[in-house]
Amino acid sequence: MAEYNTNLRLKLPITCIVMEVIVIILFAVFVRYDTDTDARKWHKEKSHDNKSNYENDFYFRYPSFQDVHVMIFIGFGFLMTFLQRYGFSSVGFNFLIAAFSLQWATLMQGFFHGMHNGKIEIGVESMINADFCTGAVLISFGAVLGKTSPVQLLIMAVIEVTLFAINEFLVLSVLNAKDAGGSMTIHIFGAYFGLGVTRVLYRPNLDKSQHKNCSVYHSDLFAMIGTIYLWMFWPSFNSAITAEGDDQHRTAMNTYYSLAACTLATFAISAVVNHEGKLDMVHIQNAALAGGVAMGTAGEMMLTPVGSMVVGFLAGIISTLGFKYLTPILEEKFHVQDTCGVHNLHGMPGVLGATVGTITASLASAEVYGEGMKDVFPDIYEGKTTPFKQAMWQGLSMGVTMGIASIGGILTGLLLKVPIYATPPDTMCFEDNIYWEVPGEEDSHQELAAVRTEEVEKPLNG
Amino acid sequence: MAEYNTNLRLKLPITCIVMEVIVIILFAVFVRYDTDTDARKWHKEKSHDNKSNYENDFYFRYPSFQDVHVMIFIGFGFLMTFLQRYGFSSVGFNFLIAAFSLQWATLMQGFFHGMHNGKIEIGVESMINADFCTGAVLISFGAVLGKTSPVQLLIMAVIEVTLFAINEFLVLSVLNAKDAGGSMTIHIFGAYFGLGVTRVLYRPNLDKSQHKNCSVYHSDLFAMIGTIYLWMFWPSFNSAITAEGDDQHRTAMNTYYSLAACTLATFAISAVVNHEGKLDMVHIQNAALAGGVAMGTAGEMMLTPVGSMVVGFLAGIISTLGFKYLTPILEEKFHVQDTCGVHNLHGMPGVLGATVGTITASLASAEVYGEGMKDVFPDIYEGKTTPFKQAMWQGLSMGVTMGIASIGGILTGLLLKVPIYATPPDTMCFEDNIYWEVPGEEDSHQELAAVRTEEVEKPLNG
Amino acid sequence: MAEYNTNLRLKLPITCIVMEVIVIILFAVFVRYDTDTDARKWHKEKSHDNKSNYENDFYFRYPSFQDVHVMIFIGFGFLMTFLQRYGFSSVGFNFLIAAFSLQWATLMQGFFHGMHNGKIEIGVESMINADFCTGAVLISFGAVLGKTSPVQLLIMAVIEVTLFAINEFLVLSVLNAKDAGGSMTIHIFGAYFGLGVTRVLYRPNLDKSQHKNCSVYHSDLFAMIGTIYLWMFWPSFNSAITAEGDDQHRTAMNTYYSLAACTLATFAISAVVNHEGKLDMVHIQNAALAGGVAMGTAGEMMLTPVGSMVVGFLAGIISTLGFKYLTPILEEKFHVQDTCGVHNLHGMPGVLGATVGTITASLASAEVYGEGMKDVFPDIYEGKTTPFKQAMWQGLSMGVTMGIASIGGILTGLLLKVPIYATPPDTMCFEDNIYWEVPGEEDSHQELAAVRTEEVEKPLNG
Repeated sequence: MAEYNTNLRLKLPITCIVMEVIVIILFAVFVRYDTDTDARKWHKEKSHDNKSNYENDFYFRYPSFQDVHVMIFIGFGFLMTFLQRYGFSSVGFNFLIAAFSLQWATLMQGFFHGMHNGKIEIGVESMINADFCTGAVLISFGAVLGKTSPVQLLIMAVIEVTLFAINEFLVLSVLNAKDAGGSMTIHIFGAYFGLGVTRVLYRPNLDKSQHKNCSVYHSDLFAMIGTIYLWMFWPSFNSAITAEGDDQHRTAMNTYYSLAACTLATFAISAVVNHEGKLDMVHIQNAALAGGVAMGTAGEMMLTPVGSMVVGFLAGIISTLGFKYLTPILEEKFHVQDTCGVHNLHGMPGVLGATVGTITASLASAEVYGEGMKDVFPDIYEGKTTPFKQAMWQGLSMGVTMGIASIGGILTGLLLKVPIYATPPDTMCFEDNIYWEVPGEEDSHQELAAVRTEEVEKPLNG
Repeated sequence: MAEYNTNLRLKLPITCIVMEVIVIILFAVFVRYDTDTDARKWHKEKSHDNKSNYENDFYFRYPSFQDVHVMIFIGFGFLMTFLQRYGFSSVGFNFLIAAFSLQWATLMQGFFHGMHNGKIEIGVESMINADFCTGAVLISFGAVLGKTSPVQLLIMAVIEVTLFAINEFLVLSVLNAKDAGGSMTIHIFGAYFGLGVTRVLYRPNLDKSQHKNCSVYHSDLFAMIGTIYLWMFWPSFNSAITAEGDDQHRTAMNTYYSLAACTLATFAISAVVNHEGKLDMVHIQNAALAGGVAMGTAGEMMLTPVGSMVVGFLAGIISTLGFKYLTPILEEKFHVQDTCGVHNLHGMPGVLGATVGTITASLASAEVYGEGMKDVFPDIYEGKTTPFKQAMWQGLSMGVTMGIASIGGILTGLLLKVPIYATPPDTMCFEDNIYWEVPGEEDSHQELAAVRTEEVEKPLNG
Repeated sequence: MAEYNTNLRLKLPITCIVMEVIVIILFAVFVRYDTDTDARKWHKEKSHDNKSNYENDFYFRYPSFQDVHVMIFIGFGFLMTFLQRYGFSSVGFNFLIAAFSLQWATLMQGFFHGMHNGKIEIGVESMINADFCTGAVLISFGAVLGKTSPVQLLIMAVIEVTLFAINEFLVLSVLNAKDAGGSMTIHIFGAYFGLGVTRVLYRPNLDKSQHKNCSVYHSDLFAMIGTIYLWMFWPSFNSAITAEGDDQHRTAMNTYYSLAACTLATFAISAVVNHEGKLDMVHIQNAALAGGVAMGTAGEMMLTPVGSMVVGFLAGIISTLGFKYLTPILEEKFHVQDTCGVHNLHGMPGVLGATVGTITASLASAEVYGEGMKDVFPDIYEGKTTPFKQAMWQGLSMGVTMGIASIGGILTGLLLKVPIYATPPDTMCFEDNIYWEVPGEEDSHQELAAVRTEEVEKPLNG
C-alpha cells in the first residue's frame, strides 16, 4: 500500500525546491529584460525613435494582463471550490501549480518561439502568454480534480507546459493559424490533455468517495465567484494579445455579446432538461462560460456582433447538454472521470470555436477588412496565402492540437500512475483532510457536542 | 392555484429563447461595428487623420468598463446574497437578467439615441451605457428580491430597459441635463420603478416567509464582497462616460472622497440608532454606498473635494436613517415591501444627488471652469443657456425621471400580477429551493443524521 | 469594570463625527484640485503645452490605483476574515479605518511633503499615496486584530497616519532613499508600529478567548479571497508610483516573478515543518505574499528577473519559518500577541526588502542603467551622490523607520490602554457579537432545535 502514503512531508518540498532551483538557474542563464522593461534599452530606443514613456507597452497590455491574472487565480481557483470538502485544495493547488507554470511557461515559450540572440527577452506580453499557458494546465487540473496529489499536479504541469509550447509553436508559427484567445491552443489543448490523463488514471472504485463529489450550499456560492470573474474578464482574455487598436476593441466586444447570449441559452437548457424544471448550479457555473471559449479563435475576426451572439448561443446549448447527457456516458462507457466537466466547458466549445474560426477565415475579404487585413490575416494581406488556404491551416491546427494533447495526456497519465507521488486512495478523494490541516466547523460541532453530551447525561440523570 | 405552479421547465426556456432570438434578429438587422471596432473603418480613419492605434477609444474606456462590469455582476449579484437561502437566486438571476438586459439595452439605447444612417454602431462606450442601463434593472430587482420568478424578472427587464432608454433620451438629449453617473437616470429611475412594481405586487401574507427574509453569518460575508466591490469601483462608474481628461479624473476623485466620508457617517449612525450600540450589517452593506449614488450628477462638476465629502456624509446619514425608520413605515403604511431597501440606497441618495447637481450647475462660472466649461456644460459655454436655466433643466429632469419610473413600475407590476409566470407562493418566498436544485448542507446534516441514528439506536440497545 | 463597557452607542458616533468634521474643515481650508483634475487649470496647461486629454495622468495611474484600492479593501479586509467569529469586524473595521485613514493621509502627506502655495493639491497620485498610507494602518490592525474596539482603531489610525507621513518625509525627501513599493515606509513601518501597540496592550489572560482565535473551514476560504487578490495585484502596488515607462513595467514584472517563486517556497516549507506533512492554511494565506513585500524597495531597480525570484524564494522561506517558530516565541517570551503574524508577513520580509534595496543600490552602474539612471537614482545620475552613499542612505532609512514605528507604536499603545474606548474583555476577544448584531446560523440551529425537541418529546412519548 506504499502508493497510499499521502504524507507530503518530503515529497512536496523536494519537488517544489528542485523545480524552483532549476527554474532559477535557467532564468539566470537565459532570461533578460526586453526593451520595454530594461532601463538602458528603453531609454536608448525612446530617444532614438522619439517615443514618449506613455508609448511603453505596459500601458496597452497591463490592464488586460491583470484581468487575465484574475481569471487564472481567482476564476479557475474559486470555480473549483464547488466541492464540499475540497476548497482548500481547489484554490490552494490552483495557486501552487499556476505559480509554477507561469515560470516554466516563460522558459518553454521562450525556448520554442521567443529567443533573441540566445536570450529570452520578457515583458508584459510574455507575462500574458505565460498566464495563458497556465490556463491550459488549470483546465487539465479540472479534469483530475480531487483525485491527484500536488506532487502529481506539479509533474503534470512540467510536461503539459512543455508540450503546450511546442504545440503553440506548430499552430501559430508553422501552420500560421490565428488563435489569439486560444480556442485551440488553450482550451482544446487543456481539455484533451486533461481527459487523456484522467482516462489513464481511471479509478473503478471511485464511488467510495462519491458522497464527497458534490457541493454544499456555500461551496456553490464560492464557485460562483470564480464563474462570474471568468465571465466578466473573458473579453480581456481573448483580446489580451491581439493587435492593438480595432483588433483588441473588436475582440473584447465580440466576446462580451457571445457570453451574454450564451448565458440565456444556458438558463434555458438547464431548466428544460430538469424533470422538475429547476435550474442546476453546475450548468450555470460552467456552461454560461462556453461563449468565451467559443470566441477564442474568431473573436478578432470580423464575425459581426450578431455572429458572436449566435456562436455564444450555440456554445451554451452544447455545453449544457454535454453536462447533462455526455458526462455520464464518458464515465460509464469510456471510463473518463472528468470531475469538473472540462470536456463540456473547454473541449466541445473549443472545437466549436476552432470551427467558427475556420469558417470565418475562409470568408475573409478585402471588402470587409480593408487595410485591417494586415493585422488579422497578414499572410492574406501580403498575398502569401488565400482565405481558403488559411481556413485549411486553421482546421489542420485543430487536429494537430487534439492529437498532441491527447497523446501527451495519455503518456503523462502513465507516468503519474507510478505509485510514488502521494496519490490519494479511492476512499479519500475529494477530501482536503489528507493534504491540509483542516479546522473543524466548530459552530455546529460544538452544538452537536453539546447535544451529544446531553444525550449521554440524560440516561445518567434518568 | 395555477398561479403557484413554480415549475420553470417550459416557461423559462421559452422566455429565454424567444427573447434571445428576437435580440439576434434585431442585431442582424440593425447593429454594426463602430469606427473604433471595425477593421476597415478604423484603418481608413486612422490613415486619414494620422492617428495611432493607441488613440483607439478602447484604451481610454475599457478599464472603466471592466470596473463597471464588476459592479454589475459581482457587486449587485453578491450584495443581494445576504439572504440565508436565496444566494443561488440572488447571484444567478442577477446574472441572467443582466446578461439579457445588456443586449436589449444596446438595441433600445441605439434606437432612441444612437442611430447612424439607420444602423446602431457599437463600441466600448455603448457597452458601458448598456451596463449602466442594466444597473437600473438590478436596482429594481433589489426591491422585488425573493418574491418574483425569473420569468417575471425577464419581462420586467424588457419593459424597464425600454423605458430607461426613453427617459435617458428625454433627460440627456431633450432637456440637455448632465447626469454622467446616473443619479437620476440610473438610481432614481431604478429605485422608483422597482418600488412601483413591488407596490403592485404587495403580498399581505408575506410574513409566512418572514423567517427566511434575513441573513446568516456567512451570507452576510458574501454580501460584503458585493458591497466592497461596489464601493471601490464607484469612482470608475461615475467617471466611465464623462469627457476625457480632467473630467474623468475629477469625477473619480470626487466620488472617492464622497464614499470615504459616507462610510464614517454610516458607522456613526448605525451605532447610535441601535439600543445596544451595536453595528448593523444591513447599514454597512448598503448605506456606505450612498455616497457614490449621490455623486452621480455633480461628480463631474467643480464640486471641490470638500463639497464631495459633505455630500457623501449627508448621503450616509440619510440612507442609514432610512433603513432604520423609513423602511418599516413604507411596508406597514404604504404596503411597499422593499426587500433590499433600494429606496434608502438608490432612491433618496439619488434625489440628493440630483439636487446637488442642480445647485452645483446653478453656480457654474467661467472663472471656476475656464475652458473646461466646454466639456462639462457645453450649452453654457456656447452661450445657448445660462447656469440658472441649466439648473432648471436639471431639476425638471429629476421630476420627469421619477414620474416615468413610478408609472412605468406600476404598470409593469400590473402586468406581472397575471398568474402565469411561475411566481412563488407566500410561503416560499426568499427560498432558492423552488427554482434551483439545492444541495444539502451535508456536513451538519450527516452529523445530525448520525446523532439521530444514535438516538434511534439507543432505545434498541437499552 | 468600566473598561469593559463595550457599548458603542455614543463612543463610536462621537469619534466618527468629530473626526470627519475636522477632516472636512481642513479639506475646506487646505485641499484643492491639482492641474490634472481642475477644469480651468487642465485646459490652460493643455493648450499651453499642446497636450491632449489622453496625456492626463489619470490614464497612466488610475488602473494601478484601482488595483491598489482592491488590495486595501478586499485584500486586507478578507485576509483577516480567517477567524471563525470575527468576519464582520475584520472586513467591517478594515472598511471603517481605511475610509478614515485615506482622508487623513491626504491631509498629513500634504502637510509634510505636498504643499503648493499653502494648498494641498490632489489627484490620482495623491490618492495612491493615501491608499499606501492606509495600508500601513491595516498592517498594524492585523497585529491587534480581535483585541481592540473600533474607537481604539480610529485613534490608532489618527496617530499612525501622522507618524507615517513624517517618516515618509524623512526617508524619501530628507534621506533621499528609494522605496516606491514601501518595503520600509509601509511594511516595516506598519508592522513595527503594530507590534509596539500590541506589546503594550498585552493581555496575559487572552487564553480565555483562545478557542475563538482560530479558523473554520469557510472562514479560511473567505481569507483566501483576500490572499489571492493581494498576490495578484502586488505588481500593481509596487509599480503604482514609480516613474512612467520602463520603471513601472519592470517593477510590475519583478514583483510577478518574486511572488511566483515565493509561493513555491511557502508550499515547500509549510509541508516540511508539519509532522504529518500537511499544508497549513495560515502559511499559504500569508507567507506566499512575502515575495511582494520583499520587492517593495528594489522592485524598480535593475534587479533582473532571476534576482527577483531569489529574493521571493528567500522571503517565502523566512516568512513560513516565522509563522511556525517565531510567533510562539514572540508571544511567550516577549509578550507580543500578533494575531495575524504581521511580523512574519510584513516585518521580516520588509527588512529583507530594505536590505536587498540597499545592496542593489550599491551596485547601480551607468553601464546597466544607461539614461534610465535618471528615473531610478536621480541623485546618482546628476552626480550628487554615489551608489555607495545611496546604499548608506537606504540602510539608514530602514533604521529610522524601525525606530519611529516602534516608539510610535509603544506610545500609541499606552494611550489606548486608557479604559474609555469600549475595549473588549479578555473573554470576548475575537468575537463579533459584542460590536455587531450577529444573525444566528439558523440552518443547523433549526435542525438542532428540531433534534432537541424530538429528544424532549421522546421521553414524553416513551
